[in-house]
Amino acid sequence: MTHEQHAELIKALHDCAAACNYCFDACLQEDDVKMMAPCIRLDRECADICAYLEHAITRNSPFVAELAQVCATICDACAAECSKHDHEHCKKCAEACAKCAEACRNVA
Amino acid sequence: MTHEQHAELIKALHDCAAACNYCFDACLQEDDVKMMAPCIRLDRECADICAYLEHAITRNSPFVAELAQVCATICDACAAECSKHDHEHCKKCAEACAKCAEACRNVA
Amino acid sequence: MTHEQHAELIKALHDCAAACNYCFDACLQEDDVKMMAPCIRLDRECADICAYLEHAITRNSPFVAELAQVCATICDACAAECSKHDHEHCKKCAEACAKCAEACRNVA
Amino acid sequence: MTHEQHAELIKALHDCAAACNYCFDACLQEDDVKMMAPCIRLDRECADICAYLEHAITRNSPFVAELAQVCATICDACAAECSKHDHEHCKKCAEACAKCAEACRNVA
Repeated sequence: MTHEQHAELIKALHDCAAACNYCFDACLQEDDVKMMAPCIRLDRECADICAYLEHAITRNSPFVAELAQVCATICDACAAECSKHDHEHCKKCAEACAKCAEACRNVA
Repeated sequence: MTHEQHAELIKALHDCAAACNYCFDACLQEDDVKMMAPCIRLDRECADICAYLEHAITRNSPFVAELAQVCATICDACAAECSKHDHEHCKKCAEACAKCAEACRNVA
Repeated sequence: MTHEQHAELIKALHDCAAACNYCFDACLQEDDVKMMAPCIRLDRECADICAYLEHAITRNSPFVAELAQVCATICDACAAECSKHDHEHCKKCAEACAKCAEACRNVA
Repeated sequence: MTHEQHAELIKALHDCAAACNYCFDACLQEDDVKMMAPCIRLDRECADICAYLEHAITRNSPFVAELAQVCATICDACAAECSKHDHEHCKKCAEACAKCAEACRNVA
């Protein structure tokens, strides 16, 4: 499958990485940073793997399916953590992660 | 400057990383791989730094200006190499690199 | 498991990433670049995931086991390709990949 | 300059990335996470660029000098922030960053 056929997954990964990085930055500026610590950690994990996978798809990596499976797992974990919090950036991040996890599973 | 204000640069980086990775993959499938070796090398360099910088912008990195300066240098080098070749993927890559170099310089 | 307990895996990943990147660079300078194209592609894949996993371990990522499983798969593929070639850099790379694949499987 | 000639810089980058990632993880587990927020942010920035540069050196990137200059800037910033704190992981991180900044400047 070429990277053009992966257009939907690429968009989901791109949006998810951006949402996670935005949430990472916003969590670090919250008053209750301590409460956000698990979120900060998972935001980084999720943003990094999404960026990695997006990059791998566009270079036509032979390992997209395997990477997408791990990515789905990490997106799920980040979605679960973010959905515990009421901050707008967490809610948006949880949504982007859930959408991305599903797109990953379609390819894995 | 927030990542929303960097929307144009983010798009240029995204398009450039994708064009470089596509060109990397296509060069490896050409008959004249030997002639494309410098292009293959620079495609990887350019795709990697563009993906890195895009990621850094969305996490609100304090070092976007410094990274954008290096990124512009690498985009210029990749554009110069790709523009020597007649392959469609090289021409498109050269264009994306030139556009991205300019967007980087606006921020650097 | 902390990153100190992962010392052996970190070393294997580090050596493998370096060997793959060295092989990538050396393959691009060979006379028979065309024959080395699959090796060049897999060297990049393998170097990138090894560097990624090493980085993930030191930040105490909760996903080391999942990432190590994918990494083992990619190391195996790169070892198989490199072992087809007689270049010294390919032989050394194949060795580093095989060793790293095993270290990954011990953790996955 | 080959990656063998860069052995000292590679070691400094490797140690710095590991120290920053360790500090990132440890800061997230401190009681005073809010106070550590700037440290957490800079640890990620510094670990990421050090890992990137180490990877770039081993693939014989033509842009090591330019990247090393940015890396020195980021290492300096992280060292300055970490040296404000009394946590053992911060002190060690500040040391590793200072050493790495110097090694980067020798190449930049």
